[in-house]
Amino acid sequence: MSGGELDPAQHGLGDMDPEDLRAHGHRVVDWIADYLAGVGERPVLAQVAPGEVRDRLPEAPPDEPEPFEAALADLDDILLPGITHWNHPAFHAYFSITGSGPGILGEALAAALNVNGMLWRTSPSATELEETVVDWLRQLLGLPGDLRGVIVDTASVATMVALAAARERADLDVRQRGLAGRPDLPLLRIYTSEEAHSSVEKAAITLGLGRDGVRTVGTDEQRRMDPTALGAAIREDVRFGYRPIAIVATIGTTSTTAVDPVPAIAEVRDELVEELGHDLWLHVDGAYGAMAAIDPELRWVLDGAEHADSLVTNPHKWLFTPIDCSVLLLRDVEVLTRAFSLVPEYLSTDDGEVTDYMNWGVQLGRRFRALKLWLVIRYFGRHGLQERIHHHVEQARHVVAWVEKHPELVLMAPAPLSTVCFRAEPDWVPDAATGEDDDPRARAHDECNRRWLDRVNASGEAFLSHTDLDGRFTVRLALGSLHTTDERLERTLSVLDRELAALRP
Amino acid sequence: MSGGELDPAQHGLGDMDPEDLRAHGHRVVDWIADYLAGVGERPVLAQVAPGEVRDRLPEAPPDEPEPFEAALADLDDILLPGITHWNHPAFHAYFSITGSGPGILGEALAAALNVNGMLWRTSPSATELEETVVDWLRQLLGLPGDLRGVIVDTASVATMVALAAARERADLDVRQRGLAGRPDLPLLRIYTSEEAHSSVEKAAITLGLGRDGVRTVGTDEQRRMDPTALGAAIREDVRFGYRPIAIVATIGTTSTTAVDPVPAIAEVRDELVEELGHDLWLHVDGAYGAMAAIDPELRWVLDGAEHADSLVTNPHKWLFTPIDCSVLLLRDVEVLTRAFSLVPEYLSTDDGEVTDYMNWGVQLGRRFRALKLWLVIRYFGRHGLQERIHHHVEQARHVVAWVEKHPELVLMAPAPLSTVCFRAEPDWVPDAATGEDDDPRARAHDECNRRWLDRVNASGEAFLSHTDLDGRFTVRLALGSLHTTDERLERTLSVLDRELAALRP
Repeated sequence: MSGGELDPAQHGLGDMDPEDLRAHGHRVVDWIADYLAGVGERPVLAQVAPGEVRDRLPEAPPDEPEPFEAALADLDDILLPGITHWNHPAFHAYFSITGSGPGILGEALAAALNVNGMLWRTSPSATELEETVVDWLRQLLGLPGDLRGVIVDTASVATMVALAAARERADLDVRQRGLAGRPDLPLLRIYTSEEAHSSVEKAAITLGLGRDGVRTVGTDEQRRMDPTALGAAIREDVRFGYRPIAIVATIGTTSTTAVDPVPAIAEVRDELVEELGHDLWLHVDGAYGAMAAIDPELRWVLDGAEHADSLVTNPHKWLFTPIDCSVLLLRDVEVLTRAFSLVPEYLSTDDGEVTDYMNWGVQLGRRFRALKLWLVIRYFGRHGLQERIHHHVEQARHVVAWVEKHPELVLMAPAPLSTVCFRAEPDWVPDAATGEDDDPRARAHDECNRRWLDRVNASGEAFLSHTDLDGRFTVRLALGSLHTTDERLERTLSVLDRELAALRP
Repeated sequence: MSGGELDPAQHGLGDMDPEDLRAHGHRVVDWIADYLAGVGERPVLAQVAPGEVRDRLPEAPPDEPEPFEAALADLDDILLPGITHWNHPAFHAYFSITGSGPGILGEALAAALNVNGMLWRTSPSATELEETVVDWLRQLLGLPGDLRGVIVDTASVATMVALAAARERADLDVRQRGLAGRPDLPLLRIYTSEEAHSSVEKAAITLGLGRDGVRTVGTDEQRRMDPTALGAAIREDVRFGYRPIAIVATIGTTSTTAVDPVPAIAEVRDELVEELGHDLWLHVDGAYGAMAAIDPELRWVLDGAEHADSLVTNPHKWLFTPIDCSVLLLRDVEVLTRAFSLVPEYLSTDDGEVTDYMNWGVQLGRRFRALKLWLVIRYFGRHGLQERIHHHVEQARHVVAWVEKHPELVLMAPAPLSTVCFRAEPDWVPDAATGEDDDPRARAHDECNRRWLDRVNASGEAFLSHTDLDGRFTVRLALGSLHTTDERLERTLSVLDRELAALRP
């Protein structure tokens, strides 16, 4: 374009031509189908050394366009060896998740539409499908109809946003005046169990409450929050001048999947609200565990959740949706939008009674995550989801039975959902040298389990992670992937057996 | 599975079969190619009434699985009429973006891999490709090599994270002690121009600084931050006991794409650091505008940015990457990880000298966004990106020339990048009734422009948004989409002409 003349041809200044996109797209779909058909034969945990992948990538971007095929070839040659395969049937680390077929296709469609659902008008279907699909999820979980929902990226953000709403509802004028340099403000506190996810503490740091703004409450022998200790902690804090603003209960802790007793916690909250004469927000972190409630046999995990002010659960964890997709359900939407709403003129609209999701949180840009969740729920249906979740819990029971039957293994925690914590405590492990530790035998077992886990993961045949329970190194085996057949799980248990036996002197 | 027996068949409890995924995937790719080939003929702005889409969606989730084809059919029938088409050649609202072919395919691949790049070991390739590709972007922008980068979802989060790092570097022990109930703390302040994005204020609210924690600084006649006013504001605040912690400069404001004078701002910052004897973080919000620097002719937009502590720019805005993808570059990574790092035992690894990106911000879960950005940069190459960005700026110059030649239009602000602000001020508009306003003529023109914009957007032939400049309703036309051919832009200008003429009495 020169001299004000417009050239109707784009001179190659456009996007990939739709016919090229079609051709490359078919190749990509075949790649994906082949990948998923064969991923089970790859090493689960990437077997590369730090820097190995980076060293094979050019240090500088290419000056000229490269054929799409070249990038696909590099995906195979350079990147795949450094991928830890989360969609692998023997991925049992952290939480076992699935980027399912309908979810993958949903991501591709969302990227093609590329809408930003910040306002209703910037894509009414994005907003209204989101409203619909989060309500479907609410129904699947058996939660009350006065909860409304929003999709965010992660539970960390959902919990932060919920706690920001709690902070706003404390009527301390935080939105306007902030927290710093205000002698009128007390110390603010959030209460959660010592088993809670680090996102609670991270939210407290971000929100300006600091790590001191979180008081952790003790748990019972099953690692569930102790409601009596919760009440005592809050009352003690109040005597010392703290202002309690929120309680975070967990449905399915990350370490052992413990389920906090939400009915009793809600009762303590209600008593305290009466006593203190001010609000106390109850947030439920069900990022992983809440999905269990889709199975009627496990609906008990959400007992009491109807008393919560907010609840987060992640379809990208146990609902077969590619990351990221986290749903925050809450009752008092007004306080959330009061906390976050800032509408500059260039975004002001006259649409009146519509939902503008940009006012529900920190992020202005919002991709069309509802689409993949909608496709997943439709493709599997309520019963399909229910059966799959049920099956994962049965698989976990099978692992528990295997552990209990195994002469050298010890179950380290109850396994109410789909994750099992255990460790090897074989007789044949020689005592560790006596040291500062008062239990050289336990220390020797720690080392044995560490070596066992390293061997299993290095084999590439399965990937498990660990946790620490009362100072003891503990192996975690998480179920929840649609790719984990019973047969493959059997094979993984054999690998565990084999690698433990290999440690025997 | 019952009685502890494992059934090798999955009884339909798995994912979509890879061969079904292949078949559905090919259908989806054809849908995407057809959609992108034909999107230009659809109405850009959705022409539905509030609730219209929702009313056509079932209130409850399906009990039984539904064929994938049924969902695809509903995408066409129910959702598409309610989609505002951001990938449309006549989408000129907000910022004009592109979910490009390579980017779309990258999203599909990332969803199939479904890795969570929270730790290096949870997918070394995800971490090392991210390190590589953000460094490629740094090089494309001509920024110094001591900046390191991370991909987050949105600029709102990137700015919040950068300001959290600034707050941490103020050495007030905020991470541990928070901000509330601390008589030792002064009021904290962030400085930005009155034209800055609302995300700065939102970050201040979230971080517990409050709206009062942001002081906006005046601008010159081109709506660029006034560095002298900045220095004066900070010095005044310090006299009143405030503690300044950060300055946010903008490269390409959202309203008029003004470019703050970063060299002069950095100079003021340096003087103040010397004067005050403490740190003052300089963050550059180049969410949209920084990408212009890829074109050597426009490299000047990042003059001075080498003095910034951090800079955010969004490949999902002007680098043809599907949302979401926002890159934060910063120098002092140590302070960022000091602010956010919390490593629970179940995530502890012994990988030593590797990057664990979960410690770089709020979110623990991190999808594999680097993949699409890598594919986009490789597919277009440095020169291809450069030419396209250059072309968008030329298109904007063409629109400026059209406005300036037009007897009824007035250019409302300089258009240094790819967005043009203008309004109609035709003689034939009758005066508004005299009212509280002191300028009934300007008010009449406001109403004329509002009606003009509504007509254009209702036509479905183009979608523009507006801003407010000194109280005057102003139309914005944003370029930046790979789909906007010069020919199509001509057609849009004709639509603007036609709809303005239609208002003539």
